[in-house]
Amino acid sequence: MTDAVTLIRAKRDGHRLSDDDIGWLFGAYAKGEVADEQMSALLMAIYFQGLGPQELRTWTAAMIASGDRLDLSSLRRPTVDKHSTGGVGDKVSLILAPLVAACGAAVPQLSGRGLGHTGGTLDKLESIPGFRTALTPAETLDVLAKTGCVICAAGAGLAPADRRLYALRDVTGTVESIPLIASSIMSKKIAEGTSALVLDVKVGTGAFMKDRDRARELARTMVALGEEHGVRTRALLTTMDTPLGRAAGNAVEVEESVAALNGQGPPDLMEVTLALARQMLALARISEDPAAAIADGRALAAYRAMVIAQGGDPDAPLPQAAHVTQALPAPADGWLTRLDALKVGTAAWWLGAGRARKEDAVSAAAGVLCLAKPGDQVREGQPLLELRTDDETRFGPALAALDAAVDVSEQPPPPPPSPIIEHIGPA
Amino acid sequence: MTDAVTLIRAKRDGHRLSDDDIGWLFGAYAKGEVADEQMSALLMAIYFQGLGPQELRTWTAAMIASGDRLDLSSLRRPTVDKHSTGGVGDKVSLILAPLVAACGAAVPQLSGRGLGHTGGTLDKLESIPGFRTALTPAETLDVLAKTGCVICAAGAGLAPADRRLYALRDVTGTVESIPLIASSIMSKKIAEGTSALVLDVKVGTGAFMKDRDRARELARTMVALGEEHGVRTRALLTTMDTPLGRAAGNAVEVEESVAALNGQGPPDLMEVTLALARQMLALARISEDPAAAIADGRALAAYRAMVIAQGGDPDAPLPQAAHVTQALPAPADGWLTRLDALKVGTAAWWLGAGRARKEDAVSAAAGVLCLAKPGDQVREGQPLLELRTDDETRFGPALAALDAAVDVSEQPPPPPPSPIIEHIGPA
Repeated sequence: MTDAVTLIRAKRDGHRLSDDDIGWLFGAYAKGEVADEQMSALLMAIYFQGLGPQELRTWTAAMIASGDRLDLSSLRRPTVDKHSTGGVGDKVSLILAPLVAACGAAVPQLSGRGLGHTGGTLDKLESIPGFRTALTPAETLDVLAKTGCVICAAGAGLAPADRRLYALRDVTGTVESIPLIASSIMSKKIAEGTSALVLDVKVGTGAFMKDRDRARELARTMVALGEEHGVRTRALLTTMDTPLGRAAGNAVEVEESVAALNGQGPPDLMEVTLALARQMLALARISEDPAAAIADGRALAAYRAMVIAQGGDPDAPLPQAAHVTQALPAPADGWLTRLDALKVGTAAWWLGAGRARKEDAVSAAAGVLCLAKPGDQVREGQPLLELRTDDETRFGPALAALDAAVDVSEQPPPPPPSPIIEHIGPA
Repeated sequence: MTDAVTLIRAKRDGHRLSDDDIGWLFGAYAKGEVADEQMSALLMAIYFQGLGPQELRTWTAAMIASGDRLDLSSLRRPTVDKHSTGGVGDKVSLILAPLVAACGAAVPQLSGRGLGHTGGTLDKLESIPGFRTALTPAETLDVLAKTGCVICAAGAGLAPADRRLYALRDVTGTVESIPLIASSIMSKKIAEGTSALVLDVKVGTGAFMKDRDRARELARTMVALGEEHGVRTRALLTTMDTPLGRAAGNAVEVEESVAALNGQGPPDLMEVTLALARQMLALARISEDPAAAIADGRALAAYRAMVIAQGGDPDAPLPQAAHVTQALPAPADGWLTRLDALKVGTAAWWLGAGRARKEDAVSAAAGVLCLAKPGDQVREGQPLLELRTDDETRFGPALAALDAAVDVSEQPPPPPPSPIIEHIGPA
């Protein structure tokens, strides 16, 4: 037997919480015997003092045990999923899930919504007329069995303790803690029942992790957690200094994803998508070339099947913005060397693509299209972005967010380095 | 305009909160726009990152401004008060307030209740039949004008933000922070309207501060805060390794206080009390010898007047414990060199003198009497303590708490050092 104050003080003073301590904590929190103000103080103490490997394993296990675990054992295909820590223009899931399904795996992609400057996969897909992201567990399994992939919301039954803790962290300044991030992501992914998982840990101005060392630490922590819980897990560190692809928003990213599935994707987006697909297929022990599945149309077919299975019409026109403007003139002749991901993401958010609070609705049509990308030659005055919104008054703050978002150089820059920084496997 | 998460993150990351930030925070907390779980996360961040001098001044001012300030300007005497950080057997206020009043000052002693192993002044006085500690501001002023001293509860109108924050800190492991302790104590004392204040900052096993350096830092912080808010403030660091005097409990401490006012106080208790009295009188610019006011009976007369003015009967017999036992036999012939304050205080708590939760009642009769004190010669088997309780089942845990509470040496120890460690004035 212990009590909340004893545990908070122990962690505050740098001691380890035992398995029993953590078990007691989650039980008492679920029963309301540990109050939110006690949990938030503990979370802040964890922010400062961290969680050791054994504490983190037990903490994550407690979050998984707080709810149901999807049972994917009835599927005849090997299961493998991907999680991204989020970036600007990161529509990879929309392409990757059907692509890997087309190669023979089952991809149970349970996703979240966007908050702040990075978009959410569910928000993007909901711009497709009719598309449903709220599926029951039975519907989720059904779509997965039929089409090899599903992209839907994680139900309330999966890791409810994480849902409650995340909402608390969001309002108490305790989001940015590697063990708390790792346990939050991994508890949901492990509860989702996938056998294998590839993590896309993004690093750069538009990423949650600005710093490569911290991103690597997060990746290693999550890989270890997955492996400890019996999920084969690998991670890629990828760059997020400039938007991935050309589109940042909702419908505008669906359009770009469909183009990618048609073989028309921008090179950086394709490189990241294919690298993740190869990792996923390797973990699923499938020796298929994902590029071939795009070239021969199987990936696009899987995408269309998934959209239809989730109630969407893949042929319906996507919502169009009421107001479109070309903006951000190039300051000089030369080569674009920088187009800041965070600023573009913030502009898309101001235009209506993202939400300030969880309760807010997003605009399907709002977003930003990059008319040039780093490495491109530009002429002075040439607009570098297209801004789309349903609410004209948003152009002002969006443009303000784009202040100092670009650099143009007189010299052509060296060819851009690969967006794939590093592969991370089990230690 | 700011918001709670921005402030929490700023403090978490080691930045300073501006005056506007702190003003916004207290206003929004009072209106319920900042939630307890946000405040507790901020308090934990302050535990780790501290508050700078300007932040602390503004924080304390905001707590004072959250409520009323007593107006003592109608009193014809100079006002001076004392605050102790709390110790075992610390009945000093009961002697000191009437003593300093007898010398010509007005002592508005607004006090608290005991929690844990240190007793509370109000709990002790309430063992006197009829004594009332819950006075209105008008009654408080009236008793003060009539008798020169009053010892009562700080009303709900004084620094209500501190009351709320203290309750939150108590359950969130954020009590032990020097700026939070200093602002809590000083906001109440400044709001109480005293012109001068002497702080008794206790150091040792039975004190809140175990460490001399931290006690000194707390004392300096509080002296600076008082002076900045126009209250002449000094501090004494005093030892709290062994109980002060011989009694720890409620009625048992009232008895010892009355003996002290009769000139029969134990030497350590008298030394601390007189040192504090001299500091208080110096701050009140009164050149009286407090020892003389005890010798000639004026201090006792002031005490009796105060008890009567607060509804008590100074001649009524005090509650007697149903069960009394002599315990803790000396382990050998020799000299007692250690009698642990924390263990004695914890034993008194188990016997019923203290409370586990704010809502609990205390036993007036429960407590511990030290039959020997460090420096005394003892014979093997001689009981060192008398335990008193209304509930016989408490003897077991009280005795368990006293395990290893004493040391006896074959050699007579050097004369005990003065309990007064250090005087601390403004920097």
